[in-house]
Amino acid sequence: MKKNLFVCSFILTGLLLSCGNSNGIIRIPTPVRPAGQTDVLQLRCDPLPVVRVGFIGLGMRGPGAVARMMAIEGVEIAALCDLEAYNLERVRESVAANGRSAAAEYTGDSGWRELCDRDDIDLVYICTDWLNHTPMAVYAMERGKHVAIEVPAATSLNECWQLVNTAEKTRRHCMMLENCCYDKFELATLNMAQAGLFGEVVHVEGAYIHDLRETSFNPRLSNETDEADEAEKPHLIGYWNSWRKSYNSAHTGNPYPTHGLGPVCQILNIHRGDRMTHLVSVSTNQFGMTEYAKERHGADSPEAAQQYALGDMNTTLVRTQKGKTIMIQHDVTSPRPYSRLHTVSGTKGFAQKYPLRQIALDPNAHSALPKAQMDSLLAAYEHPFYKEAGRRAAELGSIAHGGMDFIMDYRLIYCLRNGLPLDQDVYDAAEWSSLVELSEISVRHHGAPVEVPDFTRGAWNKLQGLQFAE
Amino acid sequence: MKKNLFVCSFILTGLLLSCGNSNGIIRIPTPVRPAGQTDVLQLRCDPLPVVRVGFIGLGMRGPGAVARMMAIEGVEIAALCDLEAYNLERVRESVAANGRSAAAEYTGDSGWRELCDRDDIDLVYICTDWLNHTPMAVYAMERGKHVAIEVPAATSLNECWQLVNTAEKTRRHCMMLENCCYDKFELATLNMAQAGLFGEVVHVEGAYIHDLRETSFNPRLSNETDEADEAEKPHLIGYWNSWRKSYNSAHTGNPYPTHGLGPVCQILNIHRGDRMTHLVSVSTNQFGMTEYAKERHGADSPEAAQQYALGDMNTTLVRTQKGKTIMIQHDVTSPRPYSRLHTVSGTKGFAQKYPLRQIALDPNAHSALPKAQMDSLLAAYEHPFYKEAGRRAAELGSIAHGGMDFIMDYRLIYCLRNGLPLDQDVYDAAEWSSLVELSEISVRHHGAPVEVPDFTRGAWNKLQGLQFAE
Repeated sequence: MKKNLFVCSFILTGLLLSCGNSNGIIRIPTPVRPAGQTDVLQLRCDPLPVVRVGFIGLGMRGPGAVARMMAIEGVEIAALCDLEAYNLERVRESVAANGRSAAAEYTGDSGWRELCDRDDIDLVYICTDWLNHTPMAVYAMERGKHVAIEVPAATSLNECWQLVNTAEKTRRHCMMLENCCYDKFELATLNMAQAGLFGEVVHVEGAYIHDLRETSFNPRLSNETDEADEAEKPHLIGYWNSWRKSYNSAHTGNPYPTHGLGPVCQILNIHRGDRMTHLVSVSTNQFGMTEYAKERHGADSPEAAQQYALGDMNTTLVRTQKGKTIMIQHDVTSPRPYSRLHTVSGTKGFAQKYPLRQIALDPNAHSALPKAQMDSLLAAYEHPFYKEAGRRAAELGSIAHGGMDFIMDYRLIYCLRNGLPLDQDVYDAAEWSSLVELSEISVRHHGAPVEVPDFTRGAWNKLQGLQFAE
Repeated sequence: MKKNLFVCSFILTGLLLSCGNSNGIIRIPTPVRPAGQTDVLQLRCDPLPVVRVGFIGLGMRGPGAVARMMAIEGVEIAALCDLEAYNLERVRESVAANGRSAAAEYTGDSGWRELCDRDDIDLVYICTDWLNHTPMAVYAMERGKHVAIEVPAATSLNECWQLVNTAEKTRRHCMMLENCCYDKFELATLNMAQAGLFGEVVHVEGAYIHDLRETSFNPRLSNETDEADEAEKPHLIGYWNSWRKSYNSAHTGNPYPTHGLGPVCQILNIHRGDRMTHLVSVSTNQFGMTEYAKERHGADSPEAAQQYALGDMNTTLVRTQKGKTIMIQHDVTSPRPYSRLHTVSGTKGFAQKYPLRQIALDPNAHSALPKAQMDSLLAAYEHPFYKEAGRRAAELGSIAHGGMDFIMDYRLIYCLRNGLPLDQDVYDAAEWSSLVELSEISVRHHGAPVEVPDFTRGAWNKLQGLQFAE
């Protein structure tokens, strides 16, 4: 029954394109909300004195998530699931070292379902490859669990709607773990924007520019290589089953838009007074993966012969209802310094994080503020989350990822324990993840404008401004 | 006869849109090359031992151009033209102070035609408002003169084709004065790109981000205010007849794309082995001009009531035949630091000028080179133009605009005196200026992809790589 609701969006788009329409925008249909279902804006659930968490995926992001959760009061590490014995073992040891009782463990193809089937888990925390995010989250919500999902939460419009419909039907929280929304600088600029420091924010930019060529081509660390050559370990860590390379071989557009998009959507109050209406997206051809594969594996290697659909650089431009624009870039195959841009440009001021932290304010905005003055301003607008938990985040070191990952988990647990709406709702997850397919549709149509669905189905203007629950 | 050739391109575009076409790109027709006409790629004309220059427009950019030309050997300041007596007077004085005989002077509505009609002028150097660039250049070429035109050379596709057709018919040089192509950093990165330091250059970016609100609303400096309050002078200099504000009130898209575009098109060898095929362009609504007008002139002022078509930020994405992308931005109404971006991203390395000079090279490109190392590299790849004339440019101070304006004029005169092809040809002028109308068409169609004409009409692949004549 559910399956019929979600016609493959690519096929649907093809049909609509052939119909054409008056203003040249590729229309993306919005499925009718199932009867009896209402939106989950500002969803509140029963407070949970202790949040019992089950983790799925302990390869790359999972172990850090468990470690952070152990540093937060009121969390029980209830269950662990991974396909690899080695990953389970590492986390089992860290839980024991923390003086906790052993968590239930699951493995194998149906392990994650068994974890979700338990009745002593409140939150399922999903750190797997992208393609498993939505199926696992939907299954977990159907079993009454709240879910937290690594980015992107979904890889297609079909999946975005599955998350929205399931959250609305089950009244469970579905939060995408967009950690960059909790970065100190990003939160300070959100604070400044909300205080009016930038005037009307008109244009914003975000990016994920991160040279992942080496990691993409690395084999996954196995027990053998681990013990054989400990010194080589950091250079050999790759994605399980090379899933990221496989995904990027099959898809173009921007497969990973949310790190840049999340923080700037919060600043623009997306679905809290404004909404994304349409986008255009343009990619370069692919050059970098093949060149790298030839050098690393040889000109005659299967890696060099492989077709990689993903262009080296993708740039996507989004327009909003209120006439603002968002520029989002993705490049994981070019040799260049890491950047998420995080540009905020308004009628009274400007801020940017990469490649240089800058703030400039009217009437002296021709030059950025001198560093000391910028630092004072950043201190004055330090976000309350960092005032509350910044010190504890700093104590955690690298597993907090500069603080943001800890603040993210801390807020998630805080809201669940107090029965409050989460900072990021299922509409954020759907909107930010929807660019994965929407950008691909545009790229495959020479950059044609593509409609961005209103995942709130009419309620984007109900809330006025983003407010974090206290 | 000529007029019939150039159907208003907006009307033409409208017709084509209603026809539609299979791949969703708005087609821009290419007029047939008039019989007997051939391309002017690598055009060589008779060497001119002395270049006799007539200048039109002595308000903003003109006086500096005259001053620079007086510092170059083999130049005669033959004639001057402006609508305002004060402007003529200032330049007349500077010519006399240089120990030169007086130049012929022209004023009034037909003064510029009389200047072009003289038979003792080799080069007409045009520094007027945008709308007069092409009419004056066409008239001058028809009278046998070479022309140098401030940016943009043209404001419509119609005008772009007028320049191309007139240059091809008259076999005269038509160079747009894109000074940013002669900036020291831009030229060094061109040198590096040509030496293969960045590998295959895949994506480039340029911009014109310059807060011009104050200048846009300033009245033009008059003799009265000049003498009345000398101290206020720098704050009162505006555009003649507020032409820039008028243009930006009537047009959207990117009216001023060439400063960012020129240097990166040279790096991509546009019409020298690659070509721009189509673009998409998205603008924000207009916020900044109205807000500024209200504050400066009052909420009930005519300035506050005026409609301004130009969005605060425009972002345009261009694709090339070889699958590269160019991102170009324009924002002259937001309070933010000046930027032309100048980003060059290839398979082996990366460079960016704004907001932070950075170069990063494989295999250590996760971090930019330390400053000392970058400076050594920039010194090693200093462009021959700066080796030749950099010291003289530096001696000229502000009128050289950091060196680039002097190098530009120096190269123009050097090539004319030696009968060599100019560094920038009429196809560069047309291609770079064509974005003015192409971006506006895209913006007015929700960012729909728009074809970029091949102004060489089939010869874009005849030259292999940009080479400056020696």
